[in-house]
Amino acid sequence: MAFGWIDEQAELRRRAGLVRALRPRAADTPLLDLASNDYLGLARHPEVTEGAARAARTWGGGSTGSRLVTGTTELHAELERELAGFCGFEAALVFSSGYAANLAAVTALAPHGSRIVSDAGNHASLIDGCRLARGTTRVAAHADPDAVRKALDGHRGPAVAVSDTVFSVDGDAAPLTGLAAACREHGAGLVLDDAHGLGVLGDGGRGAPYAAGLAGADDVVVTVTLSKSLGSQGGAVLGPARVIEHLVNTARTFVFDTGLAPAAVGAALTALRLLRREPGRAARAGEAARELHCRLTAAGLEAVRPDAAVVSVRAPSPEQAVRWAADCRAAGLAVGCFRPPSVPDGVSRLRLTARADLSGAEIERAVRVIGETRP
Amino acid sequence: MAFGWIDEQAELRRRAGLVRALRPRAADTPLLDLASNDYLGLARHPEVTEGAARAARTWGGGSTGSRLVTGTTELHAELERELAGFCGFEAALVFSSGYAANLAAVTALAPHGSRIVSDAGNHASLIDGCRLARGTTRVAAHADPDAVRKALDGHRGPAVAVSDTVFSVDGDAAPLTGLAAACREHGAGLVLDDAHGLGVLGDGGRGAPYAAGLAGADDVVVTVTLSKSLGSQGGAVLGPARVIEHLVNTARTFVFDTGLAPAAVGAALTALRLLRREPGRAARAGEAARELHCRLTAAGLEAVRPDAAVVSVRAPSPEQAVRWAADCRAAGLAVGCFRPPSVPDGVSRLRLTARADLSGAEIERAVRVIGETRP
Repeated sequence: MAFGWIDEQAELRRRAGLVRALRPRAADTPLLDLASNDYLGLARHPEVTEGAARAARTWGGGSTGSRLVTGTTELHAELERELAGFCGFEAALVFSSGYAANLAAVTALAPHGSRIVSDAGNHASLIDGCRLARGTTRVAAHADPDAVRKALDGHRGPAVAVSDTVFSVDGDAAPLTGLAAACREHGAGLVLDDAHGLGVLGDGGRGAPYAAGLAGADDVVVTVTLSKSLGSQGGAVLGPARVIEHLVNTARTFVFDTGLAPAAVGAALTALRLLRREPGRAARAGEAARELHCRLTAAGLEAVRPDAAVVSVRAPSPEQAVRWAADCRAAGLAVGCFRPPSVPDGVSRLRLTARADLSGAEIERAVRVIGETRP
Repeated sequence: MAFGWIDEQAELRRRAGLVRALRPRAADTPLLDLASNDYLGLARHPEVTEGAARAARTWGGGSTGSRLVTGTTELHAELERELAGFCGFEAALVFSSGYAANLAAVTALAPHGSRIVSDAGNHASLIDGCRLARGTTRVAAHADPDAVRKALDGHRGPAVAVSDTVFSVDGDAAPLTGLAAACREHGAGLVLDDAHGLGVLGDGGRGAPYAAGLAGADDVVVTVTLSKSLGSQGGAVLGPARVIEHLVNTARTFVFDTGLAPAAVGAALTALRLLRREPGRAARAGEAARELHCRLTAAGLEAVRPDAAVVSVRAPSPEQAVRWAADCRAAGLAVGCFRPPSVPDGVSRLRLTARADLSGAEIERAVRVIGETRP
């Protein structure tokens, strides 16, 4: 049978304790959420959901076409202007997902004959961007500007280094200043995925590149998601206007994709304005993460010190990670559970995310549950 | 400068008449729309926009995480059940875009050592799926089952043929029965992108694979978009439950992407229910396209006979295509304008789309404008 071979793979997954299954959630779950990427607690904010609803009623259920045909509304243009302004870049381009934004940025900026230097801990979407790009990729050791320097050595022609600003699995930050210096020595561009930095790091949540003084530089391009701190869906590329124009003309995931739905544009725009009005939310997410880490460590758990809002706790095995997460859930706490192949080092973890609106009592309760259920 | 090389490319585009620019549209444009992919006229339907608004208010502005963590709501599961049932498949899996669904289906079903046979006219997202997949791709002549047969010849191990059901540029249909026969002779799977078939072809809009008697077959996998006939955003893969389970576990654009926003899920689900209630919409889109083609041909224009709702009209050059589309717009008519590199054969076109809710008078007016502005 044509797809018979997938049954063998399914059997291997079962034996290795690596089966994944969907667990649809109800609208009003009593679980304490330390699993989502809703860092600022804005996804359910009434202003944000009303922004989505209003946009759907005004502009329609979908954008109806490619951004180059009928899929660009004035609302898309408004979000792009405000997002670029907020993060300190000349221009922005909105995509239907952060994944699509990363594929676009990497492929469009790494033409035939170019070199890409990719951090070993990069997100799957950056890795797929490298694989789709016509340039040649070298993988550099994790968070190591010297490794980037060496990987760029001796290359002539276009080059880019590509890195997450905050790594999704362990929540550790990239050494942005060092990376920028390494790139500049070689005349290479720097592409940074700030999915987990926007809304959490930098003045009022302007992101990790802004905090590192890289916003608006003519050799820096940043990708962000609208689906984490901004409580919506989609992604964007931020950079010099000429780079954005280049993407409009050449990025396949821009040209050949339907534009982001108006409701998602409206939700993200409303969340962005809310964040400008209440900039303290950004710092609170980071504070909640540090408090969570501190209490976990005090309880004797092995947790990575957070540079943003992700706190990673190591588990002994995939099976035990799954059981641990299930026991947390049974005790009223939702946590993420990352297992191979979603972890670059093969180590399974509980992945906890802090939110700006977590109370001290909620953090205390979360740590108690995690401690009591540890394998 | 790091990105200096892109200026040369921009200059080449300018000289070749291939510059693309975004043109944000207003919410209430007086233009007659023959450019969008809103085949059933549902994107602005009040039930559909209210479905989006209600979902945003109930479930939030975003899904808050990967489908495997917090990004699957009961609404996602409902849409997946109803979409699979409508199209005649065992199971469905919703993605944030049709692009992501195509990357997922092709990469997950073409492992290392497998062979992919890809139609020469396939959409960019299928081509990128082939490039990302670990299998080896052979490009087969357009819409030619014998070419597929030859390309599969002599291969041992997993194999798939990949094709659009209705090709986006010219609106012509793939020979599905012939393709399925060619695949079955070789024990190969068949992956069909029904982006332009769902809602237009098959009984009540159940799609081209349904019309060809391929729905529910254990060796057929279909991808669809929620952003065309269903007036929303997103995509889905339909197929045997074991294939869907395989995608949940291995497809990178599923595992590493944020789940589709609730508003888009709600809009698509509402549109699907509306289509079930008013199945005549599907046939009307096709009738409108055939009437449009008939009148264009009568007016002496070179148009491709439509198999679904897309009608393509050839233009003498990219520059003239752009001017033609601009002249149509000035006369109150929005049409698509496809130029290299978005056309597989390098021929520029006006791309017209028919909608179920186009009146005879509107079709007449459109043809008059296109005729009067022809280069």
